[in-house]
Amino acid sequence: MIKSIDTTDPTIFAIFGGGDLTWRKLVPALYSLYIKANLPEHFAIVVIDRGEISDAKLREHLHTGVDQFGCCGKSKAADWTPFSKHIFSLSGDFTKGQTYRDLGQLCAKLEKEWKMKPHNIFYLATPPSLFGEIPKQLHKAGLAEDKGYARLVIEKPLGYDLASAQDLNNQLTAYFDESQIFRIDHYLGKETVQNILAFRFANPLFEPLWNRHYVEFVAITVAEQVGVEHRGGYYDKSGALRDMVQNHLMQLLCMVAMEPMLSFDADQIRNRKIDVLNAIRPITPVTVHDSVVRGQYRQGFIDGEPVCGYREEEGVDPNSQTETFVAIKLNIDNWRWQGVPFYMRTGKRLPSRTSEIVIQFRAVPHQAFPPEATLDWQASRLILSLQPHEGIVLRFQAKHPGPKMNLNTVEMEFNYRDAFAAPSPDAYETLLWDVMKNDLTLFMRADQVEAAWRILAPVQKMWSLSPPSDFPNYVAGMGGPAEQHWLLAQQGHSWPLPSGTVKEAIRRGE
Amino acid sequence: MIKSIDTTDPTIFAIFGGGDLTWRKLVPALYSLYIKANLPEHFAIVVIDRGEISDAKLREHLHTGVDQFGCCGKSKAADWTPFSKHIFSLSGDFTKGQTYRDLGQLCAKLEKEWKMKPHNIFYLATPPSLFGEIPKQLHKAGLAEDKGYARLVIEKPLGYDLASAQDLNNQLTAYFDESQIFRIDHYLGKETVQNILAFRFANPLFEPLWNRHYVEFVAITVAEQVGVEHRGGYYDKSGALRDMVQNHLMQLLCMVAMEPMLSFDADQIRNRKIDVLNAIRPITPVTVHDSVVRGQYRQGFIDGEPVCGYREEEGVDPNSQTETFVAIKLNIDNWRWQGVPFYMRTGKRLPSRTSEIVIQFRAVPHQAFPPEATLDWQASRLILSLQPHEGIVLRFQAKHPGPKMNLNTVEMEFNYRDAFAAPSPDAYETLLWDVMKNDLTLFMRADQVEAAWRILAPVQKMWSLSPPSDFPNYVAGMGGPAEQHWLLAQQGHSWPLPSGTVKEAIRRGE
Repeated sequence: MIKSIDTTDPTIFAIFGGGDLTWRKLVPALYSLYIKANLPEHFAIVVIDRGEISDAKLREHLHTGVDQFGCCGKSKAADWTPFSKHIFSLSGDFTKGQTYRDLGQLCAKLEKEWKMKPHNIFYLATPPSLFGEIPKQLHKAGLAEDKGYARLVIEKPLGYDLASAQDLNNQLTAYFDESQIFRIDHYLGKETVQNILAFRFANPLFEPLWNRHYVEFVAITVAEQVGVEHRGGYYDKSGALRDMVQNHLMQLLCMVAMEPMLSFDADQIRNRKIDVLNAIRPITPVTVHDSVVRGQYRQGFIDGEPVCGYREEEGVDPNSQTETFVAIKLNIDNWRWQGVPFYMRTGKRLPSRTSEIVIQFRAVPHQAFPPEATLDWQASRLILSLQPHEGIVLRFQAKHPGPKMNLNTVEMEFNYRDAFAAPSPDAYETLLWDVMKNDLTLFMRADQVEAAWRILAPVQKMWSLSPPSDFPNYVAGMGGPAEQHWLLAQQGHSWPLPSGTVKEAIRRGE
Repeated sequence: MIKSIDTTDPTIFAIFGGGDLTWRKLVPALYSLYIKANLPEHFAIVVIDRGEISDAKLREHLHTGVDQFGCCGKSKAADWTPFSKHIFSLSGDFTKGQTYRDLGQLCAKLEKEWKMKPHNIFYLATPPSLFGEIPKQLHKAGLAEDKGYARLVIEKPLGYDLASAQDLNNQLTAYFDESQIFRIDHYLGKETVQNILAFRFANPLFEPLWNRHYVEFVAITVAEQVGVEHRGGYYDKSGALRDMVQNHLMQLLCMVAMEPMLSFDADQIRNRKIDVLNAIRPITPVTVHDSVVRGQYRQGFIDGEPVCGYREEEGVDPNSQTETFVAIKLNIDNWRWQGVPFYMRTGKRLPSRTSEIVIQFRAVPHQAFPPEATLDWQASRLILSLQPHEGIVLRFQAKHPGPKMNLNTVEMEFNYRDAFAAPSPDAYETLLWDVMKNDLTLFMRADQVEAAWRILAPVQKMWSLSPPSDFPNYVAGMGGPAEQHWLLAQQGHSWPLPSGTVKEAIRRGE
């Protein structure tokens, strides 16, 4: 195991690709770390791209991104100016050895200047077609070997099915050790997602309830209000199953369902997660139909404004069979979760941007209250709300004030914003900090990625054999296809409505 | 078992004693029931007292009480005028048979007028010296027999020790059946106290944690800011142990510690409560010293204003040995609570009016988080707040926002006032409604009263044998005698500070 580095060690962030991700996310996150004094004295951000662009021009361009997407509004000159001096442009073709020799020379120059060996973080902010090439070239240029110092960061799509994911992992691990590879799932950088571990395992209160004896079902919803935006071309080849379920939703499921870890060591936690994925009951050709629902949006309205259907989006095939909505039911075959269904759904052009994990509890074993007291009865729930508000809601029964014993469903709430003066950092800020610290806890290991693909392989196969006959099957701005409700109705369950966190926000007039 | 009566049945509230309780509490509570349409069409309030006072004068006097202490501010003429016509004055000596014959005649007259047999509720709002006499006289006048129709309501003090409590019960049950006797503990009428049963037994979430495996200790605090007010003479003969611990605190303990009831039948619940009292490990002459702390306040300051010491209060003996503070540690010898101490304390002239039940949970069985993450660690708690704010607070650990995994203690809160548009009714309103409905659930049974006295008998005995040598031993407006902390320190525990409900209220500027 490689130990955490001291964050005062000099560090080079070599970002391959100067596109949207770099501009909107990575450099603003690095800037945020900088102004919070979380970067070492000696650091460099090297943006490698095809076009010839001067350091000055590059800095100017990145400045606009920091001002627009940074943590704290427009940057101050007193901060930006010294920060920007750490940014360098390196022009070159990602497939040419020369580019990597140039990068190596720049690194050597900085090492000399700093009089200390820097950590080199190679961030692949490129199309996935280059995910094999760049590591190979880095290796050829001698930049990959130094296990304690060289790290590789990549992000979805990590393959498009099991075979391609295995291929990709083979290519990566040919040149980098698994311990050097940081596979980002930015959902894992979200505060509320990280808090799931704290909530479950730093408290004695919840874990005793967190099992088949008390939990009726778990429902995970990641609803987007946006359509495909400018990503139509990419999305049409991907779809919701690949784009959201295989990575984000599976990772959320692991956080909710995993056994307690021994320690906060990265592999201890990742071992418990892979245990969950390995315990998921395989979907078979026979069960696909009863386990998964797909959908595609047609034209409709979002916040009263008309929006086009998916097939009318730019870059999308007018006869596209790509799903923009998936609902899936999974079972976990282990002692803790036997008989507890895990429902997950995600989709675009849904009524609101809401991400929630709902733990719905069983009814009390014996109802001692008179029947007229429980007319308003609703199941107790714990709601972990990730978006739009970060918080936790506990729904339970309380006595309605008055001389009679009547029970009402009420909510107890914990709001991140109210509880902490500090706002939640962007997920990339957290994740880049972890890469610097050499902490792999929040990153996906090869086996996790492959296990998630393996679970979904039968779905992909059956879907390709029987294309949807009813697409588009839901109206933009409405709640998604009706079939999603059948998945749960089979067990007498229904999808939870958005939680009180949302209601609360409405009440406050946000 | 006597069934609930239909509340449209005519009802006579015969209140013995036209003093403070009647003026401040009983008539305002009846008025509140009236304006909420919770009284039957035919009802009468008969106030029986020595002095000759006309109906008109009595109504005028009670009107001022309703305006001052009623649920909803000054009464409206449109409500008060029709209500007041139900109020009658009956003058007479409580020890004379004539008084009861007059009352009987009035009841007969009303019955004739209403053409229906009324339920007669005899409320003893008199000094305890009359608690034996009035039931006897009622019996002699033939007003006690009719089990379904005649009810007796009495309130503390129900004896001053075990022997006198047994005496009183014998006197009451000589003339009234136990099923006709409503012993009020007004704490049991409070919304948050009643909600303890709903919280515990209408929800699947808390009961699994509610035992020795998860609970470290339970602490019940009923702190008063006031001194003895105008009750110096009475209080000096009673003291905190008799006035608060034997009744209110013991009843709260029963609500927290009892096993689940089979049904909401009064005796089902009261059986579970007596089980708790019977399971309390007896205090012995040897253990008194380590189990109980007493205190008496000296002069000090409340909210910056000087206040006198207890011995300087009007009606109090200048050498009084009466305790104005008690802290007590109890153990419950059963499967659920073995090894979990129950700490209770109450006192006058404490810094604030706060009533809270704190369930403090054990630490997690295995701490997987790095040591630096848990520097801020505090035990998880569930706080049932009765005063000044009615609510529930859950204290737990959450991740502090930021790239590092640091845990902070945070609170999740449920506020009665925020959750329900309806304000909580006064305890007397609830309890009078229950008397009308013939529902004994919230009233103390003879065996409960005696069991509570039995538990405290060794304390009373040892205290009378060894009077306090250090009284007065705490300063008014400070936190009570220092010795209270030793009670808990023996087990490595400490008294919880007031909860977030209070902090929240401070934040809101209340």
